[in-house]
This record gives sequence, C-alpha cells and structure tokens, in this order.
Amino acid sequence: MFKFQLIKKEGNARLGKIYTPHGEIETPIFMPVGTQGTVKAITVKHLEEDIKAQIILGNTYHLYLRPGLEVLKKFNGLHNFSSWKKPILTDSGGFQVFSLSIGKEKEGKQKAQVVVTEEGVKFKSHLDGSWHFFTPEFVVEIQEIIGSDIMMPLDECPPYPCSHQYAKESLERTVRWLKRSKQAKKNPNQALFGIIQGSVYEDLRKESTLKTVELDMDGYSIGGLSVGEPKEFMYSMTEVVTSLLPENKPRYLMGVGTPEDLLEAIDRGIDMFDCVIPTRNGRNGTLFTHFGKINIKSAKYKFDDTPVDPLCDCYTCKNFSKGYLRHLYNAEEITAYILGTIHNLRFYLKLMEDVRNAIKNESFSIFKKEFLDLYNSNI
Amino acid sequence: MFKFQLIKKEGNARLGKIYTPHGEIETPIFMPVGTQGTVKAITVKHLEEDIKAQIILGNTYHLYLRPGLEVLKKFNGLHNFSSWKKPILTDSGGFQVFSLSIGKEKEGKQKAQVVVTEEGVKFKSHLDGSWHFFTPEFVVEIQEIIGSDIMMPLDECPPYPCSHQYAKESLERTVRWLKRSKQAKKNPNQALFGIIQGSVYEDLRKESTLKTVELDMDGYSIGGLSVGEPKEFMYSMTEVVTSLLPENKPRYLMGVGTPEDLLEAIDRGIDMFDCVIPTRNGRNGTLFTHFGKINIKSAKYKFDDTPVDPLCDCYTCKNFSKGYLRHLYNAEEITAYILGTIHNLRFYLKLMEDVRNAIKNESFSIFKKEFLDLYNSNI
Ligand SMILES: [Zn+2]
Ligand SMILES: [Zn+2]
Repeated sequence: MFKFQLIKKEGNARLGKIYTPHGEIETPIFMPVGTQGTVKAITVKHLEEDIKAQIILGNTYHLYLRPGLEVLKKFNGLHNFSSWKKPILTDSGGFQVFSLSIGKEKEGKQKAQVVVTEEGVKFKSHLDGSWHFFTPEFVVEIQEIIGSDIMMPLDECPPYPCSHQYAKESLERTVRWLKRSKQAKKNPNQALFGIIQGSVYEDLRKESTLKTVELDMDGYSIGGLSVGEPKEFMYSMTEVVTSLLPENKPRYLMGVGTPEDLLEAIDRGIDMFDCVIPTRNGRNGTLFTHFGKINIKSAKYKFDDTPVDPLCDCYTCKNFSKGYLRHLYNAEEITAYILGTIHNLRFYLKLMEDVRNAIKNESFSIFKKEFLDLYNSNI
Repeated sequence: MFKFQLIKKEGNARLGKIYTPHGEIETPIFMPVGTQGTVKAITVKHLEEDIKAQIILGNTYHLYLRPGLEVLKKFNGLHNFSSWKKPILTDSGGFQVFSLSIGKEKEGKQKAQVVVTEEGVKFKSHLDGSWHFFTPEFVVEIQEIIGSDIMMPLDECPPYPCSHQYAKESLERTVRWLKRSKQAKKNPNQALFGIIQGSVYEDLRKESTLKTVELDMDGYSIGGLSVGEPKEFMYSMTEVVTSLLPENKPRYLMGVGTPEDLLEAIDRGIDMFDCVIPTRNGRNGTLFTHFGKINIKSAKYKFDDTPVDPLCDCYTCKNFSKGYLRHLYNAEEITAYILGTIHNLRFYLKLMEDVRNAIKNESFSIFKKEFLDLYNSNI
C-alpha cells in the first residue's frame, strides 16, 4: 500500500520516504524518464547498479499507443513487461496529448488534432494519425492495466502564455476530471495524485491547490510549469502551491528540471522530480558536472585523461576519460550515448542523495549555496 | 609474453589456450569486433559480465584515422584509452583500405582512391578524403602505439572474383610485406601473425601458406575469404591452408562468420574468429537462437512472453521477452540495440564455450551435428 512519511524538515526542504508495493523511495528524489517502457539508451542493469534509480517514469499516452493495451494486459503490466521491479510512476498523457497535438499554436486556435470537451479529449496519434479519445476514467483504466505504483489523472495542460480566463476554465475542468478519476479508480494498490494547474496566476494556483487538496489525494503534482515561462514564475508558483499543501502527502513538480531548478524547488518544499534533460543531454553530449555543464564533443577534451566529473561516483567517471568519451561521441558510437546517460542520471540521483544527507544533517541551505556557487563558477 | 598451447584434438578440431600479457584466451574463440575503440552499442561492463568476452578486436585503419596516433600515444594505447583490460587483437587495416576504397569495382580498375606500390598503399580517408600512406613498417608502428596483444601485418586483399595472376602477385607482395613487418616489429610483448592469401586457388593458397609458415610467425591468419565467394570455397580453402599449418601456432579465420561457418571451420582446424555479423544483426533485430535466426520485429512476437532463446544464458534472455524486445525495436529505442547485441554476442561466445567442452569430452562431431540439425530445423 502507498504511504508517505515526512522524516525531517529544514526550512521548507523535506526529507521523506514513500512506501509502494514495489519498494520504498527516499525523497527528495529524481525519477528517470522511461517514456516508452525503457529509459532511453540504458539497460535495467545499469539503471539499478550504476545509476541507483529508485523509481522511473512511464508515459500513459505513449504506452497506450505502443505497445498498446492488449500487449500490456497479456504481460500483466509494465513491471513484468520491462523487468523493472522497483516503483513506476505514470504520467497521465494529458501533457503529451496537448503538447504533441497543439504544438506551439496559441490557445483557442488549436489544430484539429485535439478536441477538448467536458467528457474528455479527442486526439490524433503522432504515430499513425489515428483518432483516440481519452476520458478521465479511461486514463485511470489504462494506468491500472500498466500497473504503475503512482498514477496521474487526466488534466488539461494550458500552454504558456495563456489568458487568465482560459487558465481558470482549464483548472476547473481539471478538478472536475480529477473527481471522476478518483471515482473510477479500482485498484487500492495504486496511488492517485491530483494535478494542480493555474498557469502563472497566483490566485488560480491557490484555487487549484485548495480544490485539489479538498479531494484528499495520495499526493500532489504541480503541472503546467517549465513550459516556457520565466524561472521566477516557476519558483514563485511552486511556493504558492506548496504553502497550501498538507505536510503528510508527497509533492511532485512535473517535468522539472535543471540541477538549479531541483535545488530551488526542494527549498520550496518539493519531494519528487522528473525531466528528460539528463537523458536527452546524455545522448547529445551535454554532460553535468559539479563545475557546470560541459560539451564533451569539444576539441579541448581531445587529450583529456580525467573523468567527466572527478566528484562523480558513476560507472562512466570511474572507468572512462573525457578524451575517450569525446572520441565515442565524435565517432557516433551508441556506447557514447549509454555512457553519457549513465553519468547524467547518476549525477542527478547523487545530487538527490546529497540533498537528503544535507537535510538529515540540517545543512541543506549551506549545501545548496555551496553546490550552486561551484556549479556556476565555470572553473 | 605470447604463447599458444594445444591442449587436445578431436579430428582436426582443436582445444587450446593463448597466453598474452593481458590474460589468457581459451580457443576456439570468437572475438567481438570493436572497430573504433568500442564494441558497438555495448559497455565494457556488459562485455565482461554478460557476454564474457575474452578478447576483442580493434581496427588499425579506423583508429589511425580517429582518434589518431597522437591521442593513442597520450593515453598509452587502446587498453588504457578504452578501459578494456583483456586482450586486444588489431586488424592491419589492409582489408579496410581495399574494401572501403575499391568498393565493388573489378581488379585492375581500381578507383583513384587507392594506389598499391611495392612500398605500400596510398589511400583516401573515408572520413574526410585526406590522403594517407600505409607501409608494412608504419602499420606495425601504429599497432605498437595501439598496444594490441596480437597484431596483423599489412596485406593486399584481392576482391572476389580475382584472376589467378592477380591473386598470385598480390599474395607474393603480401609475403614480402610480411618480411618487412616482422623486421619492423620492436615490442616483444606483442604477437605478429602472418596473413595467408591466394583467393580461391588451391595452388596459391598452398604457396601462400608455405611461404608464410617459413617466416615462423606467432600465429596464422587466413584472409581473403568470406568476401563473396561460394561457401564451398571458403571451407575448402580453409582446409587446404590448415593442413599445411604447424600445430603449435594459433589459426585465425578473418571476418568469418555465421554459426555454421564457425563450426565448419573449427572442424577444419581453426581456433579464432571475428565477424561483424552478431553485432550488426543485434542492432537490426536479427537474433540468433539454437533454432535458427529470427527477426524479432515480426508481428508474430507481439504477445510472446518467452525469451529469444530458452537455451541462452544471457542477460537479455534471463530478463526480457520477445514481446518486450519487439516493442523496443519497433519504438527504435537504443535499449533494443544494446539488448540484441548482448544476446547475439553471448550466443556466439556460448557456442564457443560449448564447442570447447565438446572437444574436451571428445564429442565435438556429435555436438556439431546436433547443433546444426536443431539450428536448421526452423522449429
Ligand atoms: Zn559520472
Ligand atoms: Zn540470450
């Protein structure tokens, strides 16, 4: 059964533990993104032994389209299908439906590829152009077939920027959809979070938070941020929301972000994160270090026999040099993408480990300052 | 120091052991191909723990062009550069110079991209079109910088088909180049093999073998096969050559081949193999099983919850189903290429393990028949 335990606080930063049927998760935590049933460019073995991931993400929209529900049913869910035995959180697909369909067009001028009604959302598959219809009930059903430990309800994700009126309508629809999602949920072993919307409007974020908390969900997600708005908005909206959330439930800031973002959000009371940045950057050669990001393909690393980050404990850093990695990226070897992904994900997971230890020792505020000073120093 | 020990024979099949400064190699052995300083789509960790490779290949032509000699010098060779601590064999680059430059054109009508003289071979880089010149001496020097345990001399690789006269000229040049290679070699810790040519002409294969053996090399490679000739020629030429080779030196059939080819060649006295087939097929979804090859992308595996090969002990087969792998290949996930490569390479390495055990137990001829019966049964 799902449970959250708040162990300790330092300011608003929280040390906690989530209990799920597939194991425990220490928070704050970063969750590697495994959109299509695998974290990209990595095996479960590297994920467990070298990255030490505690929970990964799956995506309802993508898994529904491929491999599809019949396959997921036949395999008794995603854990068994993918051989990842630890916790899985699934995105509702709401974000994908809106972002893949609407693209960058303005609100109110949606392409024909997505039609929102009170009942649900009709959309075209990005794979084959076929039409599909997601209702809050169906999205819960899909996730019950997937068998994730933590489910997200269907929500409406407004783009940025977005008018106050549209943001208000869509957050209120999201709340009504959440009620239906809660009612549709059958499996007591799966947790269901509520997603808080409201764009960058403080009053709407408050309204959304209060109405969502009223439904007493297993946890609370903050959606609709990191969609192009200025960072100050991301931080201030996070603060507005967390200040109204109950202490005894986990908080998840969806789709965020950079190492700086994670530290700032933890400082504002967030427990859980997911983002494609470390995996995507791992594949394109942008690697994180305690001294800032580096582009490993740069000619300046040609003869460099030191690891990507001397402070990193990962498989890549323990065994390979910048010079070797640069060679692999420039030769377009898949091994480069594997080793870069291992490093970046481990960097994120280790950062969360360090944060947890800092909160435990009541030194988070010092840790955060020192980490950011070094990270921004560009030595 | 390099040494070969012949442990046991069954017919012409040989059980042996090669000693190198980076460890021992049990023969018969298959050597995964790591052209550009990595076996494609795999980490050293999977190579060691899951594939259990004993020796891998590097390619002189590719490594000379990229990362280049200055980098390899700075890193004290390929072992240290790539973190592969076990034995490495390097191809001379002769095959690449000829195959990448001449392409499919007929002998005598070579493109301007490669010019062979008695001194050596001038060729154009496939990467940037720059001109380079390989002499037998320079190719040994490159491999001494790479620091491979087993070096190949520069040879002239005629295409198939090829006239008797051209094959004779080129094998005789290859022998003269071998003498110069042997003389140029400085490092006593690295072995140098001789490469036997002669196309599909029995008399020329004999001439090449006798002249090469006269030079008392550390081992003997058979080149110029598996270049498009009918299989019967590959087998008969192998037999002609091995019947004239000394027993106390290892024999390496270059660039071969399928599981059937390996068994047939072992039956004719070959000890060592390399081939891109398992790795290339691993990336495109053609997977080997004891019941024949399968195309894992096929719709018939959509709901298949059994492993690729129930008789395989690899990481992929122990953890993942055909249905899951099919999904990953169809979603074009890099993880598919990793898992397919692990399986195919382990299949080849396990086949060699089984062959060695069979020779040990004097049951190789039975093992070969049973393996091929099942492999060709297409159950
Ligand atoms: Zn690292
Ligand atoms: Zn296998």
